[in-house]
Amino acid sequence: MSTITAAHKIRVAKNTVYGGYDWSTSARMGLLTSFVAAGLLGLGTSRHYKYFEAITNHQITGCFCLTEIAHGTNTRAMRTEAHYDPATQSFILHTPDFEAAKCWAGGLASTATHAMVFAQLYTPDNTCHGLHCFIVPIRSPSTLLPYPGITIIDMGHKLGLNGIDNGVMMFDHYSIPRENLLNRTGDVTPEGHYTSPFSDPGKRFGASLGNLSLGRVSIIGYGVVHLRKAVTIAIRYSAVRRQFGPPDQDKELPVIEYPVQQWRLFPHLAATYALDTFAKRFAEHFGNFQTMMFEGKNRDELALFGQEVHGLSSAGKPLSGWSARDAIQECREACGGHGYLACAGFGQLRNDNDANCTYEGDNNVLLQQTSNWLLGVWVRQGEGQASAYPMGTLDYLVRGQQILAPSWKHTPITMLSSDQELIQGCLEVLQWLVCWLCQEVNTKLQDQIASGVDQFTARNNTQVYLAHTLSLAYIKEVVVRWFAESIKTAEASLQPVLRRLCALYALTQVQSHTPHLVQGGLVRSGEIVTAIQHHTRRLCTALLPDAVPLVDAVAPTDFLLNSALGNADGKVYQHLKAAMLSAPNATSRPKYWQEMLNKPLTSKL
Amino acid sequence: MSTITAAHKIRVAKNTVYGGYDWSTSARMGLLTSFVAAGLLGLGTSRHYKYFEAITNHQITGCFCLTEIAHGTNTRAMRTEAHYDPATQSFILHTPDFEAAKCWAGGLASTATHAMVFAQLYTPDNTCHGLHCFIVPIRSPSTLLPYPGITIIDMGHKLGLNGIDNGVMMFDHYSIPRENLLNRTGDVTPEGHYTSPFSDPGKRFGASLGNLSLGRVSIIGYGVVHLRKAVTIAIRYSAVRRQFGPPDQDKELPVIEYPVQQWRLFPHLAATYALDTFAKRFAEHFGNFQTMMFEGKNRDELALFGQEVHGLSSAGKPLSGWSARDAIQECREACGGHGYLACAGFGQLRNDNDANCTYEGDNNVLLQQTSNWLLGVWVRQGEGQASAYPMGTLDYLVRGQQILAPSWKHTPITMLSSDQELIQGCLEVLQWLVCWLCQEVNTKLQDQIASGVDQFTARNNTQVYLAHTLSLAYIKEVVVRWFAESIKTAEASLQPVLRRLCALYALTQVQSHTPHLVQGGLVRSGEIVTAIQHHTRRLCTALLPDAVPLVDAVAPTDFLLNSALGNADGKVYQHLKAAMLSAPNATSRPKYWQEMLNKPLTSKL
Repeated sequence: MSTITAAHKIRVAKNTVYGGYDWSTSARMGLLTSFVAAGLLGLGTSRHYKYFEAITNHQITGCFCLTEIAHGTNTRAMRTEAHYDPATQSFILHTPDFEAAKCWAGGLASTATHAMVFAQLYTPDNTCHGLHCFIVPIRSPSTLLPYPGITIIDMGHKLGLNGIDNGVMMFDHYSIPRENLLNRTGDVTPEGHYTSPFSDPGKRFGASLGNLSLGRVSIIGYGVVHLRKAVTIAIRYSAVRRQFGPPDQDKELPVIEYPVQQWRLFPHLAATYALDTFAKRFAEHFGNFQTMMFEGKNRDELALFGQEVHGLSSAGKPLSGWSARDAIQECREACGGHGYLACAGFGQLRNDNDANCTYEGDNNVLLQQTSNWLLGVWVRQGEGQASAYPMGTLDYLVRGQQILAPSWKHTPITMLSSDQELIQGCLEVLQWLVCWLCQEVNTKLQDQIASGVDQFTARNNTQVYLAHTLSLAYIKEVVVRWFAESIKTAEASLQPVLRRLCALYALTQVQSHTPHLVQGGLVRSGEIVTAIQHHTRRLCTALLPDAVPLVDAVAPTDFLLNSALGNADGKVYQHLKAAMLSAPNATSRPKYWQEMLNKPLTSKL
Repeated sequence: MSTITAAHKIRVAKNTVYGGYDWSTSARMGLLTSFVAAGLLGLGTSRHYKYFEAITNHQITGCFCLTEIAHGTNTRAMRTEAHYDPATQSFILHTPDFEAAKCWAGGLASTATHAMVFAQLYTPDNTCHGLHCFIVPIRSPSTLLPYPGITIIDMGHKLGLNGIDNGVMMFDHYSIPRENLLNRTGDVTPEGHYTSPFSDPGKRFGASLGNLSLGRVSIIGYGVVHLRKAVTIAIRYSAVRRQFGPPDQDKELPVIEYPVQQWRLFPHLAATYALDTFAKRFAEHFGNFQTMMFEGKNRDELALFGQEVHGLSSAGKPLSGWSARDAIQECREACGGHGYLACAGFGQLRNDNDANCTYEGDNNVLLQQTSNWLLGVWVRQGEGQASAYPMGTLDYLVRGQQILAPSWKHTPITMLSSDQELIQGCLEVLQWLVCWLCQEVNTKLQDQIASGVDQFTARNNTQVYLAHTLSLAYIKEVVVRWFAESIKTAEASLQPVLRRLCALYALTQVQSHTPHLVQGGLVRSGEIVTAIQHHTRRLCTALLPDAVPLVDAVAPTDFLLNSALGNADGKVYQHLKAAMLSAPNATSRPKYWQEMLNKPLTSKL
């Protein structure tokens, strides 16, 4: 294992632990140091090594300023300007108006001493060379006050992650030395001439944003941490909470014994295991990718690896964020009223996870990145390129026409399928769905372009239902497949329960795509639907005895879980009582009690 | 219009306005006064009129104590005890342990002077007569301190609604006069003999909880207020926010022009109009029901009306709460990063609406109430009872066998359907789905019971997929039908756009049930799916020019909306800047800045 792979693994582990404690702390640590350090390595050259060293030694701290008030997704349209002045050999940074102010940068509002700032680079001939990145001293390390020419505003309260100081920053003709341009992809000579190793500005920009994948790969792991916590709280609580029972029995049943409660919770338990496996394997691949990137060998393979990392992370991040979102909400509701107490912990989880659906690329927009890549591969499938991707996520596309061929007529999921057959059947269905959607989107795109619609509009018109679903089907297939593969090397005694989880996860995903399966002609009768429902219920019942051990195996410690409902000892009501009584003023009158008496509150009763 | 109907309408209007400002304020006003006043009227007799009068005159305040720490849904299992003592002619209230403590009562923690307390009534012979309600003085109106024998704890921070003081209360052999038993459904003589007009304790208990429907009917309206706010913010913002654009155009497109954004938002806009219409019509029916109840005439019709109100509110509350939940979340994400700012307003909406999914009956449990009722009607459909319900929500069940008959073979939704035909087609599909699920659940129940499974277990086994979906299909059919009916009397120029909304809402609901439509054999090819997708996209495009006017028509004032992103003037970035700058310490160093310098932050750079 290379040093970089090892370093990446350590980072993932640290994020899991620190993030499991508090995401703001974890994010602050990462954003102020390693995130910017990685950016300097990726975009800078030897002249910037001193910054890398100072950040690594905690002498300075950094923040990453790309997003502006009026532009997030469309990164190319950022409007902060950097005009080169040969007389002073400096760049003059300027923010034309509030809409062009840098924003959302974590650590910017009150902490970071330096910022990586993306701005449109202008040479003295007033030519704009597109977005480039600069390392900018923004705040005195000894007073923490911004330098003159820089205005910084705290963005105020957010739905979550309030431990991060997200800021807005505006430049008023702020001057920085020429050398502060991070010049790996383009440079300006002292006289003011622009030079770049990339002839295509599009490729140059792509290279400068390439290392953003790191953020997305990390966020996939954050979602898993949230999933673990949410299902742990809800399943432990459901095992303790009793309500109703058969009329002939004295004792009420734990609510986890009710089929509805299992059906609400266990698919999220299955998702936790599936995505955990996925996140770990992807992180390992990503470490290898980073190693290859720094070694700079095998450029062709590296390019394919980069595309696959981008495609997989751009669909994996949405899937992880949304899976956690849905799990947290269902777990919250499944814990009833007590789940609504802050001490249950779901509020913090929901509010913090919410950001994962937006930052590092809005989920819906990211899915377009993946589908664009998939469509490109589909069109070129005759060249066998699909199987050339190092992580092997698209190997089956080579067999695309065969998968779609009408000879494919067996029923992949029946009432009699074993768990292993269900997993295999779901994989076949998902692979069919990916191929079918590739074909559909491609046909619809070509039809539009043939009738004179421009590429931009044509792509927009195929997003709803089609390209959007394509990316989700692609990522779900990978998640199920990698989970299934990991089971084969698991301890033999654990394999049956892991197969149940894998089958339940796979069935849940397939079921959600029923409309497309019908539309594409794969499902023509209710038999598959009935089989899916039957097995979903059966698997929920079969998982019941293992549900608590399964969460115990992935749960953080009680201290990290920090939920009155979810402690490992199962003493829900005692913890609840302690939580309530330990709050300040739990049993005292409110401060304003005398004001309340000024109203006609005195009674004759 | 009767006085009660008028009073109910006023209450609905007040809730909409006050709740639109702040739900805690609104809930506090209602819980401390009218909710308890209504309870006294419903459960008490003339000897309790003095309490009603004092509450109405704001001399005392009340709270409603039913839920206990370990019991919410299973109300019959509450464990607070009320032992009658003939010697002192008083009831001794006692809480055996913390798990039996009353909780969640709004107004209990620091405000209410009196509580309506549900407790198991024991006569001196130690016979338990089941749950009864008592009016209990709990706190001195002049000091607001609890009386000796009563311990009250604030429940602490919640995910939302923190303006409500939810409390926990425990009694330590606390004595109240005999007359404080609310004795409409049962009484104890001074000597200690139990008397009741109801011979069946089950019916007695049912009558005492009957007026809980009021809460559910109100919550349906709360959901609509949330929907209005969420879609207003997101649609106004999407009309202003620009990102990307066709390559040949200089200006970027407002994001609302993207098909994906429309598809994400417009179904929620449609739901807002659909549920608004439903909530208003149901509230009117409910006013009539209350009038009939107090007049006490037409007992047979009243019984049917009561069942229908219970069935409709028990499915309407989940639909409204979940519709608002999903809309708020999608709107939050559709506003990107700025939607994550507290000043956007989605956090408060999400946190407050969340409670609607739980209180006054957990959504999933409530759905069982509706399906149990529907199944009873289905079994008795030969008697034509279905059409006897005053609100007419089940008239079509009389034609149940005909709806399910194999002769029903036309395609209700085709590519060529007009909006009106789509609405009609969706209604037919939903009616078919209700009938099919009634038949399925009933068959599965009978099969189990025939094979020796008890009623309790059999019902639990049919919840997942079947009974659960039955209740949702039932309520969606009513919502679509009432919306469609209301359009017929709308101003002619408005009818086309309202039909678009209605058709979009109906299609969205039908699509979500695709698996069951396939399973039941109604859908056997992809044509309906393709038609639904085609019309959904078409309707989104058609609604684009009207989207902003449609939210303007239902939006609260900017003051009530209270969102930096959603103001009517569309000046998003100016409001955002003002919101950030007006926060305390927006541009100052954090209090802890000197601590940060104690770390090796000084740099040579």
